[in-house]
Amino acid sequence: MNDSRFANTPEPPYYVVIFTARRHPADDGYAAMAAHMQALATGQPGFLGVERVRDADGFGILLSYWESEDAIKRWREHGEHMVARDLGRERWYAQYALRVARVERAYGMTAPGSPVS
Amino acid sequence: MNDSRFANTPEPPYYVVIFTARRHPADDGYAAMAAHMQALATGQPGFLGVERVRDADGFGILLSYWESEDAIKRWREHGEHMVARDLGRERWYAQYALRVARVERAYGMTAPGSPVS
Repeated sequence: MNDSRFANTPEPPYYVVIFTARRHPADDGYAAMAAHMQALATGQPGFLGVERVRDADGFGILLSYWESEDAIKRWREHGEHMVARDLGRERWYAQYALRVARVERAYGMTAPGSPVS
Repeated sequence: MNDSRFANTPEPPYYVVIFTARRHPADDGYAAMAAHMQALATGQPGFLGVERVRDADGFGILLSYWESEDAIKRWREHGEHMVARDLGRERWYAQYALRVARVERAYGMTAPGSPVS
């Protein structure tokens, strides 16, 4: 099974940026910027993958996986990403929480009874 | 602003269990078990909070926050939770990934221009 919503991360350790957010209802340029940011992040050194979900109430979780703290720092300091974050605070998000964590262990299953890692 | 979808976690460090999953469309007892597991987890020693979201396609992310690796281990070994996990693998999930990570840093915003931590 190859479900593209899941990130294909390597063996730990690696890092994850956990972004939990409540969006305002209006799009106001959000979807276009989110697509652009995802394309840009995918090309960054040390980017490992992303998993994201948002429900009909505008509450969402975005997980981006990175090889190292340095890779996260470079992405945080990327000029276009800085502009996008400013817009997020001004326009798109009513509330958010951002956490940086080090992944120590990982497990998974692709179909009943078939462990993948 | 007090948005109950967000977890009120303390200053890092603490731990997070990241559960990313694709559910089968049928409920098949899932909602009742999920509610029971959340109530049970909330009463566990070292439980700090939970954030969860699932979209209309059945793809979801569940973040549970814990004081320590020991607290995660105790919850993993809880009898009712073990039964629920077995049912999850058999009935509810087409695919999942589970990661345990140590939260190193956290930031947030509750309203435009109002940082909370």
